[in-house]
Amino acid sequence: MSLQIRNATPEDAGLILSFVKELAEYEKAAHEVLASEEMIRDSIFGDASATRALICEQAGEAVGFAVYFFNYSTWLGKHGLYLEDLYVTPAARGSGAGNALLRHLARIAVDRGCGRFEWSVLDWNQPAIDFYESLGAKPQPEWIGYRLTGSELLALAESD
Amino acid sequence: MSLQIRNATPEDAGLILSFVKELAEYEKAAHEVLASEEMIRDSIFGDASATRALICEQAGEAVGFAVYFFNYSTWLGKHGLYLEDLYVTPAARGSGAGNALLRHLARIAVDRGCGRFEWSVLDWNQPAIDFYESLGAKPQPEWIGYRLTGSELLALAESD
Repeated sequence: MSLQIRNATPEDAGLILSFVKELAEYEKAAHEVLASEEMIRDSIFGDASATRALICEQAGEAVGFAVYFFNYSTWLGKHGLYLEDLYVTPAARGSGAGNALLRHLARIAVDRGCGRFEWSVLDWNQPAIDFYESLGAKPQPEWIGYRLTGSELLALAESD
Repeated sequence: MSLQIRNATPEDAGLILSFVKELAEYEKAAHEVLASEEMIRDSIFGDASATRALICEQAGEAVGFAVYFFNYSTWLGKHGLYLEDLYVTPAARGSGAGNALLRHLARIAVDRGCGRFEWSVLDWNQPAIDFYESLGAKPQPEWIGYRLTGSELLALAESD
């Protein structure tokens, strides 16, 4: 069945949240989903947002989504496209939906003159890693992400 | 001597490029800097850009910079602040310029309601890692970055 990809709208906030929760469950992090439908709507679709979302449909039914934004490389002097989340429902796996979303994002990246198309994967998610490497994507294992949040973030902001 | 932090302007593109090159040299990646002054100016300061830069000055002389943009967490339903580059000249190390830039960014993150303040570090850069951990930042070693670029990115964009 043919797949259609469209830009998400504020009316998709509840759908996006349900997909986010399903993906977090798979990533063994369901307890880390603190977002509400209202938060998703206000943040992704707010006036100040540079974050975007895509919905993949099969025969009119939503079967997957992607959330992305534009990052930046000072080495390239160019923006890049960063894929924050990609998810396809279990029932639709093998339909090409994941590939169609990635291809759509690659086209946006090329059209916008982005130097890179990037994302992150959990180191134990071998099926995803195998799929990404089949596309020619290269791991960047020498870079470790650091995160400041909660009381430590506030403490730094309020320090003299 | 007192430190001042200001928003960068298009006139700072050459200064930013010189800092980017110095930082890349330290990161053993000088050959990976493909950016020109014009590319930095057009990309960071272009109309469609969501990327921003800060300059740190000491007694009127630029001694460091930061480049950042807003990323997004579907788990939090919030934007975050992502620090792409942070650099302080060797002569100004120990003056508190790095700390002042991070504090300034943490304040922007808190003021904008960001859930996280994030960046990446090379796994061999122990002085930077020690500094980040002293601020309470936590490593995210289970996430591996993947990158699609060049001919592989074009191939995906042009696939059927």
